[in-house]
Amino acid sequence: MRPFVFVNIAMSADGKISTRERRQVRISGNEDYLRVDRIKAESDAIMVGIGTVLADNPSLTVKSPELREQRRAAGKDENPIRIVVDGRGRTPPDADILHKGSGKRIVAVSKEAPKKAVEALRQHAAVVVGGEETVDLRGLLEELHRQGVRRLMVEGGGTLIWTLFEQGLVDELQAFVGSIVIGGKDAPTPTDGAGFLREKDFPRLRIIEAVRLDDGLLVRWEVERT
Amino acid sequence: MRPFVFVNIAMSADGKISTRERRQVRISGNEDYLRVDRIKAESDAIMVGIGTVLADNPSLTVKSPELREQRRAAGKDENPIRIVVDGRGRTPPDADILHKGSGKRIVAVSKEAPKKAVEALRQHAAVVVGGEETVDLRGLLEELHRQGVRRLMVEGGGTLIWTLFEQGLVDELQAFVGSIVIGGKDAPTPTDGAGFLREKDFPRLRIIEAVRLDDGLLVRWEVERT
Ligand SMILES: NC(=O)c1ccc[n+]([C@@H]2O[C@H](COP(=O)([O-])OP(=O)(O)OC[C@H]3O[C@@H](n4cnc5c(N)ncnc54)[C@H](OP(=O)(O)O)[C@@H]3O)[C@@H](O)[C@H]2O)c1
Ligand SMILES: NC(=O)c1ccc[n+]([C@@H]2O[C@H](COP(=O)([O-])OP(=O)(O)OC[C@H]3O[C@@H](n4cnc5c(N)ncnc54)[C@H](OP(=O)(O)O)[C@@H]3O)[C@@H](O)[C@H]2O)c1
Repeated sequence: MRPFVFVNIAMSADGKISTRERRQVRISGNEDYLRVDRIKAESDAIMVGIGTVLADNPSLTVKSPELREQRRAAGKDENPIRIVVDGRGRTPPDADILHKGSGKRIVAVSKEAPKKAVEALRQHAAVVVGGEETVDLRGLLEELHRQGVRRLMVEGGGTLIWTLFEQGLVDELQAFVGSIVIGGKDAPTPTDGAGFLREKDFPRLRIIEAVRLDDGLLVRWEVERT
Repeated sequence: MRPFVFVNIAMSADGKISTRERRQVRISGNEDYLRVDRIKAESDAIMVGIGTVLADNPSLTVKSPELREQRRAAGKDENPIRIVVDGRGRTPPDADILHKGSGKRIVAVSKEAPKKAVEALRQHAAVVVGGEETVDLRGLLEELHRQGVRRLMVEGGGTLIWTLFEQGLVDELQAFVGSIVIGGKDAPTPTDGAGFLREKDFPRLRIIEAVRLDDGLLVRWEVERT
């Protein structure tokens, strides 16, 4: 058993989620900002890869005081459990995700992670060990389910999203498509990694919703079960 | 003076236009096939980069007999002028674009193109020389305008599209967004090349139209003049 997993990303019209320098850029606007805050507050946990932590240093907290209050009123922590997928324990001990806002944190590492790094991280987060060189995502999702996580939001980056798709672990994809062009053959995209080669392996999606938001589009796709 | 330039591409939900092996894959369906044939027939010329010719060997002809007949009735060639942007004259002399269907062809090369290659290509196409190592696209567009081309369709790939955006030569972007995930950090995207680094350099778009087509979305963006 695993949680319902949905990926949320903001990409440019040409399918980039940041510049080739991996610098975070403003792709969406205010309406999408509020939407992302809402779907975050509705999730039990939110997950990112270490690449995103190192590039953007996000806190992944719920920004709206009203939404935080609603969570508290429902007997929940103010913020969803924040999870970093971090095979080698490279999360900086002073990363915002470990310090800003209240609530649980999990750093998921592999057996490759140096003991010292793991010990340092245990000061600020629960550390889950699984997988040989990279994090065993399926095992992690099962562990999260055991801990009561039913709805998991994945915020990127493209390397983590790739493995989730490759292993058939994504239920829904939500993309804000911004009205800009970023370009760059080396710029991060929603799904990086090795990529699929054969058409029969491509995950097939079904559009749930496609609406205008800010100056762009919000598209929600359900991943078809195979 | 240059023609109105619009780019048309088919991309996956995660912004890929083929697999990392650069193998052409079916991204769109039958409705988009008919749409592309129609916008091709409405264009005076259609342009691709040599990368696309080598990967896909497209003929770029108008497929519908009715549309070809309409063009003839209007006193035009059956097919728009087909143009390859090919700095070093690598277009294979037996490429489909040089042989299939009637109408003019132009191979645009740079001064780097070997004389022999240029001579071989002149058997099948008009060869336009411009630019030191890569093709001078602005000069080429001006030459096409002089030859009467008012509406130019660009079919890819991502390297050519990048240079056109970088040089401010794109007026409209049309993308069919298919409901599949291809993935791959090295898979071609709508805009490859170096990519923009600074937000102030990002071309800004305005959505003209966003509608469902086949099992995906057709989005048309106007490029804002700066
Ligand atoms: N626009 C948006 O919505 C958005 C959202 C998020 C991120 N981003 C951008 O995305 C970029 C970062 O993405 P990224 O692809 O470099 O990194 P990422 O996906 O955030 O993290 C990937 C890293 O996670 C670790 N990992 C451990 N186990 C893994 C597994 N089973 N599968 C996949 N990864 C595993 C690996 O590092 P180890 O080998 O060290 O374990 C891997 O390199 C940044 O430029 C950021 O700005 C954009
Ligand atoms: N899904 C779709 O809609 C679609 C459409 C088309 C293509 N594709 C895919 O795109 C891929 C090919 O794209 P690509 O990026 O490799 O190649 P490309 O954009 O078709 O061609 C780029 C090449 O054109 C030449 N060139 C000369 N002058 C240039 C200039 N000023 N600016 C840019 N390029 C110039 C360069 O080669 P030289 O150095 O030799 O001159 C350059 O490498 C294939 O995988 C194909 O399947 C997909």
